[in-house]
Amino acid sequence: MPATDTAPGPDLTRRSTFACWTRDSIRYRDLDPNFHVNNGAVNEYFEDGRVRFRAERMSHLSQTLLAGFALVKYSAHYRAQIRFPGDVDIGTVVLKVGNSSYVLGQGIFVDETCVATAEVVTVYIDHATGRSTPLPAEIRAILEASGPPAG
Amino acid sequence: MPATDTAPGPDLTRRSTFACWTRDSIRYRDLDPNFHVNNGAVNEYFEDGRVRFRAERMSHLSQTLLAGFALVKYSAHYRAQIRFPGDVDIGTVVLKVGNSSYVLGQGIFVDETCVATAEVVTVYIDHATGRSTPLPAEIRAILEASGPPAG
Amino acid sequence: MPATDTAPGPDLTRRSTFACWTRDSIRYRDLDPNFHVNNGAVNEYFEDGRVRFRAERMSHLSQTLLAGFALVKYSAHYRAQIRFPGDVDIGTVVLKVGNSSYVLGQGIFVDETCVATAEVVTVYIDHATGRSTPLPAEIRAILEASGPPAG
Amino acid sequence: MPATDTAPGPDLTRRSTFACWTRDSIRYRDLDPNFHVNNGAVNEYFEDGRVRFRAERMSHLSQTLLAGFALVKYSAHYRAQIRFPGDVDIGTVVLKVGNSSYVLGQGIFVDETCVATAEVVTVYIDHATGRSTPLPAEIRAILEASGPPAG
Repeated sequence: MPATDTAPGPDLTRRSTFACWTRDSIRYRDLDPNFHVNNGAVNEYFEDGRVRFRAERMSHLSQTLLAGFALVKYSAHYRAQIRFPGDVDIGTVVLKVGNSSYVLGQGIFVDETCVATAEVVTVYIDHATGRSTPLPAEIRAILEASGPPAG
Repeated sequence: MPATDTAPGPDLTRRSTFACWTRDSIRYRDLDPNFHVNNGAVNEYFEDGRVRFRAERMSHLSQTLLAGFALVKYSAHYRAQIRFPGDVDIGTVVLKVGNSSYVLGQGIFVDETCVATAEVVTVYIDHATGRSTPLPAEIRAILEASGPPAG
Repeated sequence: MPATDTAPGPDLTRRSTFACWTRDSIRYRDLDPNFHVNNGAVNEYFEDGRVRFRAERMSHLSQTLLAGFALVKYSAHYRAQIRFPGDVDIGTVVLKVGNSSYVLGQGIFVDETCVATAEVVTVYIDHATGRSTPLPAEIRAILEASGPPAG
Repeated sequence: MPATDTAPGPDLTRRSTFACWTRDSIRYRDLDPNFHVNNGAVNEYFEDGRVRFRAERMSHLSQTLLAGFALVKYSAHYRAQIRFPGDVDIGTVVLKVGNSSYVLGQGIFVDETCVATAEVVTVYIDHATGRSTPLPAEIRAILEASGPPAG
C-alpha cells in the first residue's frame, strides 16, 4: 500500500489504477432537467462499485465482522458530462489502510474517458461502544491486498 | 393490431410477445429494506423500456410531433421478487392503437422468468388546447407496425 | 366496506374520501428533463402513503403477522402535472377486503387539485408455502375499519 | 467573506452558520437495507438546499448568466444516522468566492443534531470555449453577500 498522507496517490483517472470493476447501465431516470446525468446517479454508480468490491473480496466473512463498517466521508470530482443512453464502468481500489479506517479510490469511465473520481473513507465501528476500533486482522489483510495493481 | 377491448391481449409473460428490448443493471440503491428490488426501481426499468421503444422507432420524428405524448395510466403486476446483483431485460410492444391514444404492453425478465408486466396508456395532446387530439398519421403508422411479432 | 367488484368505488379525486394522510416535499431530483415531476417520483409519494397507513394502523402487530404482505398490482392514473418546488398530500383508504387480499385507494393532492390516483392490490402470503392464505382476523378487522369516512 | 484557504471555515455543524434554509421530508425509498437513510438520499437533500439557495438569491438573473455553473467537487461528511420517518432541515451558505469559482458549505439537521455536512465547489464556465471564466459581476455580488450571518 504505497499511499501515505503526504505522497500523491495513484492516478484515479486511469483505468489501470483499479483492482475491481463493475458496470452499470445509465437510466432515463438518471437525467437532470438539462439532459445530463445527475450527480446523484453518479453517486449510485460509485456505490455499486463499493458493493461489488465487498461482494468480490469479503463475502466469505461473517455478518458480525462486516457490520462494523460505516462510510463517513465521500469526496467526488465530476470531470465530464455523462449522456444517456449507455453504460459506465466503475473501478474501485484501496488507497490507504489506517488503524481503524481505510480509504477507497474510485473512477467512473465511459469507454476510455474518466468522467468522475471519488475518495471514500470508511471507519470500523464497535457497535457496543459506538466508537471506532482497530480493523480486524482478516479485514486488514484483505484491504492490504486490494491496492493498485503493481506496475 | 389484433387487440381489442374484448379479446384477451397477447401474453405479456412470454418473451416472444415483445417487439423491442433493452437491458438494465440492477443497483444496490434499488433494494428495499427487505433486500428485494423495490417496486419503484421496477417502474424505472419499465420507463427505460418505453424510452428505448421511442428512440428506436420515433427518433426521426420532429420534437413538435413527439411533444404531444402524455402518459396517463400505468398498471403494473409484480409477479416475482427480483434479487441483486444482476440484469433485467425489458420488452415493449404496442397492444392497441386508438383514435387519440395507444396502449403499450411491457414485460421484465430475469433469464426466462417474467418478474413483472405492465400496461401503459399514452394520450396524444394538443398543447394549444390541452385536450386529446387524434394521433398524427406518421405516429399512427409506426405504432401500428409495432405490435407483437406475427406467429 | 361498501365497494364490490361491480359497484363504482368511492371518488379517489376528492380529499373527503381518504382515511389516512401523509405529506411529502417535492425534490429537484424528482424532475424529468421536461421539468415535470417524473411518474417514478409520484410512485414514491404513493409508497409513502402506504407506509404511513401501515405505521398508523398496524404498528402494534407482530413482525410475523406483517411479513405476509406482498404488493402484487399497482394501477396509477396521472391526472395533472406536478411542479417543483412544493408539497404533496397523499391520502390512503381501504377500498375492498377480500378473502386473502385487499385493495387500497390512494390520491395525491396539490392544494385542492387531485394530480394522481392509484389502486393497489396486496395479497397475504404464507411464507411456508409461498401461496396466498386468508387474511388473519386481526388484520382483517383493521382493514375493515379503514374504509372511506362515513358520510 | 472571511474564509480563506488557510483559515478554518465556519462551523458547518451549527445551525447559526447558515444563510438559507429548506426542508425535505424523508421517504421510505430513502432507506437502505439496514433501515438507515442511504447516502444517496442525503445527497438529494443537499441538492435541494443548493436549488433553494439559487431560487432564493438568483432567480431574477437571466438564463444565459445562470447556465454557466458547473458543479465539479462535492465532499460530504456523514456524521450520524438518519431515521425514517421525519424531516430534515438543510442549511446552505457561501464559504468562499474565488475568481471563477465559489465554495458552498451545507449542513443537514434533524432538530438540533447535525447529521451531515458538505462542501461543494462550483466553477463558472464559458460555454463557447468550455473553459472556466471569471464570475460575472452580478453573480459575484450575490455570492459575496451570502456568507455566514455576522455574529
